[in-house]
Amino acid sequence: MEQKIKVGIAGFTGYTGLELLRILSNHPYVKITSLSSSTHYGKHISEVFGFLPLDIKISKELEDVDVVFLALPHESSLEYVPYYVSKGIKVIDLSGAFRIKNRDVFKEYYNLEYQEKHLNLLSEVIYGLPELYKDKIKNAKIVSNPGCYPTAIILGAYPIIKAINYQDILYISAVSGVSGAGKKLREDLHYPYMEQNAFYYAIGKHRHVPEMIEHLGVEVQFSPMIIPASRGMIANIRFYNVKEEDFKSIYQSFYKDKPFVKILKEPPHMKWSIGTNMCYIYFYYHKNQKTLEVISSIDNLGKGASSQAIQNMNIMFNLDETIGLYTSPLIP
Amino acid sequence: MEQKIKVGIAGFTGYTGLELLRILSNHPYVKITSLSSSTHYGKHISEVFGFLPLDIKISKELEDVDVVFLALPHESSLEYVPYYVSKGIKVIDLSGAFRIKNRDVFKEYYNLEYQEKHLNLLSEVIYGLPELYKDKIKNAKIVSNPGCYPTAIILGAYPIIKAINYQDILYISAVSGVSGAGKKLREDLHYPYMEQNAFYYAIGKHRHVPEMIEHLGVEVQFSPMIIPASRGMIANIRFYNVKEEDFKSIYQSFYKDKPFVKILKEPPHMKWSIGTNMCYIYFYYHKNQKTLEVISSIDNLGKGASSQAIQNMNIMFNLDETIGLYTSPLIP
Amino acid sequence: MEQKIKVGIAGFTGYTGLELLRILSNHPYVKITSLSSSTHYGKHISEVFGFLPLDIKISKELEDVDVVFLALPHESSLEYVPYYVSKGIKVIDLSGAFRIKNRDVFKEYYNLEYQEKHLNLLSEVIYGLPELYKDKIKNAKIVSNPGCYPTAIILGAYPIIKAINYQDILYISAVSGVSGAGKKLREDLHYPYMEQNAFYYAIGKHRHVPEMIEHLGVEVQFSPMIIPASRGMIANIRFYNVKEEDFKSIYQSFYKDKPFVKILKEPPHMKWSIGTNMCYIYFYYHKNQKTLEVISSIDNLGKGASSQAIQNMNIMFNLDETIGLYTSPLIP
Amino acid sequence: MEQKIKVGIAGFTGYTGLELLRILSNHPYVKITSLSSSTHYGKHISEVFGFLPLDIKISKELEDVDVVFLALPHESSLEYVPYYVSKGIKVIDLSGAFRIKNRDVFKEYYNLEYQEKHLNLLSEVIYGLPELYKDKIKNAKIVSNPGCYPTAIILGAYPIIKAINYQDILYISAVSGVSGAGKKLREDLHYPYMEQNAFYYAIGKHRHVPEMIEHLGVEVQFSPMIIPASRGMIANIRFYNVKEEDFKSIYQSFYKDKPFVKILKEPPHMKWSIGTNMCYIYFYYHKNQKTLEVISSIDNLGKGASSQAIQNMNIMFNLDETIGLYTSPLIP
Repeated sequence: MEQKIKVGIAGFTGYTGLELLRILSNHPYVKITSLSSSTHYGKHISEVFGFLPLDIKISKELEDVDVVFLALPHESSLEYVPYYVSKGIKVIDLSGAFRIKNRDVFKEYYNLEYQEKHLNLLSEVIYGLPELYKDKIKNAKIVSNPGCYPTAIILGAYPIIKAINYQDILYISAVSGVSGAGKKLREDLHYPYMEQNAFYYAIGKHRHVPEMIEHLGVEVQFSPMIIPASRGMIANIRFYNVKEEDFKSIYQSFYKDKPFVKILKEPPHMKWSIGTNMCYIYFYYHKNQKTLEVISSIDNLGKGASSQAIQNMNIMFNLDETIGLYTSPLIP
Repeated sequence: MEQKIKVGIAGFTGYTGLELLRILSNHPYVKITSLSSSTHYGKHISEVFGFLPLDIKISKELEDVDVVFLALPHESSLEYVPYYVSKGIKVIDLSGAFRIKNRDVFKEYYNLEYQEKHLNLLSEVIYGLPELYKDKIKNAKIVSNPGCYPTAIILGAYPIIKAINYQDILYISAVSGVSGAGKKLREDLHYPYMEQNAFYYAIGKHRHVPEMIEHLGVEVQFSPMIIPASRGMIANIRFYNVKEEDFKSIYQSFYKDKPFVKILKEPPHMKWSIGTNMCYIYFYYHKNQKTLEVISSIDNLGKGASSQAIQNMNIMFNLDETIGLYTSPLIP
Repeated sequence: MEQKIKVGIAGFTGYTGLELLRILSNHPYVKITSLSSSTHYGKHISEVFGFLPLDIKISKELEDVDVVFLALPHESSLEYVPYYVSKGIKVIDLSGAFRIKNRDVFKEYYNLEYQEKHLNLLSEVIYGLPELYKDKIKNAKIVSNPGCYPTAIILGAYPIIKAINYQDILYISAVSGVSGAGKKLREDLHYPYMEQNAFYYAIGKHRHVPEMIEHLGVEVQFSPMIIPASRGMIANIRFYNVKEEDFKSIYQSFYKDKPFVKILKEPPHMKWSIGTNMCYIYFYYHKNQKTLEVISSIDNLGKGASSQAIQNMNIMFNLDETIGLYTSPLIP
Repeated sequence: MEQKIKVGIAGFTGYTGLELLRILSNHPYVKITSLSSSTHYGKHISEVFGFLPLDIKISKELEDVDVVFLALPHESSLEYVPYYVSKGIKVIDLSGAFRIKNRDVFKEYYNLEYQEKHLNLLSEVIYGLPELYKDKIKNAKIVSNPGCYPTAIILGAYPIIKAINYQDILYISAVSGVSGAGKKLREDLHYPYMEQNAFYYAIGKHRHVPEMIEHLGVEVQFSPMIIPASRGMIANIRFYNVKEEDFKSIYQSFYKDKPFVKILKEPPHMKWSIGTNMCYIYFYYHKNQKTLEVISSIDNLGKGASSQAIQNMNIMFNLDETIGLYTSPLIP
């Protein structure tokens, strides 16, 4: 590449923002030219995060950029996606603001409403799951980066659903590191309370469910749990009343030439994907019970958020999708 | 009570042994008279655990006792249960050695064989789950203390299975603190590796499955996960294709007068049962999907092992079953 | 005892309040008769903490009590200590409101001011460190419960200072579990940030320093660190330029008949005191460097707060000081 | 660079080995050509660590290499350092085998003996602390990579000692993540025991002390503690009886043009250096007590081991020392 891609990040102080900064700082074809923040503008980045080897002044809005990553609350993305698009800048939105095509479903799950300007954009928004939609992402102006749970679950379930034409309910339990709940302070996520703790939440009503339904085309029953780890995610997906098939071949043929998904012979450890863009999948067919059980693991801040966003950027700029992303996990 | 119960513990250095010591030290009607250890005999307890406020010399075998708790490996319990029974001493066995009635199933899951002396005893062994078998425990000579997963799962599922005559498969995912794997050193449970980690294991072949099947009378599909916490356990149990019922009444009528099971209106936090003998149950009926989801949580070393063993002892000695056990969790 | 002591707790929802509830619930001579809360009054305790086996309605002020534990912010204790004292009720205050006798020092460190009514009370306030002031505590109307760091450090240093008449600076580094910072939400104590973290804070200006100086009579240089654990505390105290003495005898003679302090032959593990009222002390004399190094460990919520408060109550009511407190730690 | 440096790693399965692999995999001028293991030779790397994006077969000895990193036990390094040197290969040894010049001190602290072949090499061994010895490292055949504690402590103390000619004892307390103890299984580092724990160890006799003395030229009193975190390190260093100076200038002039040391205005958080090669230093002068307190923090597996080893490699091969190393920490 002759010229580096000029990248801006809005909301760089949140967990996904920090992870974007970490990865993009080492991306050989990227120059971070702009960081915006409504609370920190005017400061130098070193005043906010003294531990970052970056030299940038924070502005109110992103400027001098080819592409922007929005790591903002949903409400803010509703405002800024149209704004940057109108200036002809490619947008990768990490919020949930544009993940759902149906305005009623969006309202029900996010308690927010699409206005005219959003509805006009919806048809141009591409769901940024490269293993399914790479061709569309190539030419996208707006990429809506998937939720963390949907990423793990769609990657685990999609190839099987298509191959065997599964039409029943998926039973899903998933665990997530605490960062999945964001940086917002909560009594139950305060260290002394969350250490040595774990709990299910949002049973029957998690925001990520409509995404799964839309892209999988089946019903899901989804129960997520927060466990005492900073990051990481493992989903357990059950297909019931299915015949045995050559599931291995189904996966391998689907994920051929897809460098970030790997089928394992043993259940993945959450640690194996920390800090990476990998998705590890394991499956087990319970013969007597005619059930296929699939385990899928990602880093919720990696393939579940920031590194997937950068994979999308690579694709949008005709780079090899692995550039800057093909790394080992931090172990221990 | 006029005289205290004289209690002995074999295998007091393991995690369940330590928890027995912790609780029994404060039991108003118990006197710990004997501790045995094949490696530490001859020493004073303070040489092994300087932090225990106890004054006992460790012997090779338990002596001067009314009841013994065996917190030993399965193999050792196969040896010592018949031995102490033959001396007329009540036995509460925390291992898996006598949990399974069928010799073939036992061999398959434990890779151990019952001999004549064990088969002769099997009919006298009572499965120590007081919420189901209190009357039998009262007069038991040998109590086989349930596994941790079966305790959480049977307590969560049994009332429903009986009430609606459920005959299908139960889909179960469960998480456990690391102590569930015992004190044996393992590379994947070494602190730097297990922190920020989690993994499924023994999918389709966990040793606790036959216990669940025997006492629930249905098929189970059980997938357990270890998470980065010392102790605690949460199980997620799904009944599929069931009609809506007054599940609350079913539970409340079953657990009336059973002080250690409590039905909650929200999913239990793992922390709420740490250090206690409580089992917390939450249920959610997915109307559109005709699925009943049950969440059940215990301390794997509490109701899942040591405090349940003491509950059994209380019952065997005609004490109120809550004596020494009705405590608050350690929070934070 | 014929009648149980009627106990009230103000501020029962904080970490020290919860620990008071946990221990007092099992105290054989205590009946918790009253809990007060400015935000939860009118509710039943089970609506606030569903996991507590207690049956009490929360009131606005404590009523029908022989003694009150105040687990409140400093400001609130300034208000409530005089109030309950005026009603003839014994008060054990867990805040820092009455730990410091000097009004200027108090103002400097707490940014609060004593008024006339406080100054009048100061002479009646007894510093609740039983190993030093048991006789005064016996007849106290108001006990000011020591800070967690001062408890560990005074117990570790006092016997030596007195025995060798040490008059130099003590160099102290200490680590504390996160609960030491209380329940107040803070960005740096949010789980995903605090896991895998540790940091020094308040170097040269910690609030607990004046307490140490007052009771030790020497200068201290105190640097505390928060580490990723819910509770527990270890202090490292260095006496420099001292001659070798029979330090063991000094400690043993001082702590004879003091059941909650134990001198160890190896450095204490933080875990050994979790959930107990114990203080473990280890010392090492560096011969070539003429330095005595002392390691002292407690549970910051136990001997450093709530269980010490109950030890004080036992003494105030002429009970054996170990009643309800002589327990094993929660391990693992 | 025209050609990539061909790198071999012996002992790649340990914690420092894994970290070398993680960083070197992304080093733009490095090609990992050889991995050796006495237990895994013959296997493909993916059979040992399925989560590493590497394609190498493991051999018995390192071959086809310009430089070797030895992440081996001390004993093995005693064997392999002379071996690879004799073949004309540059060696970076991460063990303690060649850190100490004095054979008696080495014997005392490591319980190992130098033989003729080692003594002959000692004069060629350069202590790989680039901030002190960069010029010597440039032409070194053998670099002995410093211990983790000495790295943090020498970087924190050296500039002051030289500037003010300090000749007294340094009082040092330090905390380290558990990985500092290596991958060897230990009962006290088993997850359920180490969670919620911390303890001092090796007081008065830690192996890293002679290194500190040798390079600082003063006496040290060093007490290390293990805390419940996978990695990271913070040292607290006290200089007593010193006059106030412009310590800031002393540090800044010493660390000018040294990109991996940064002086902070607040005490460093352990998390800030995780996964990086940074050393963060904070100092506080206690005026009344004439004591200078210095806090120094690194990642024990980063600047304290593997990334420092790679910094040494960069220097040995005339690369900019920051290549492949100037990264952000993994937060959260």
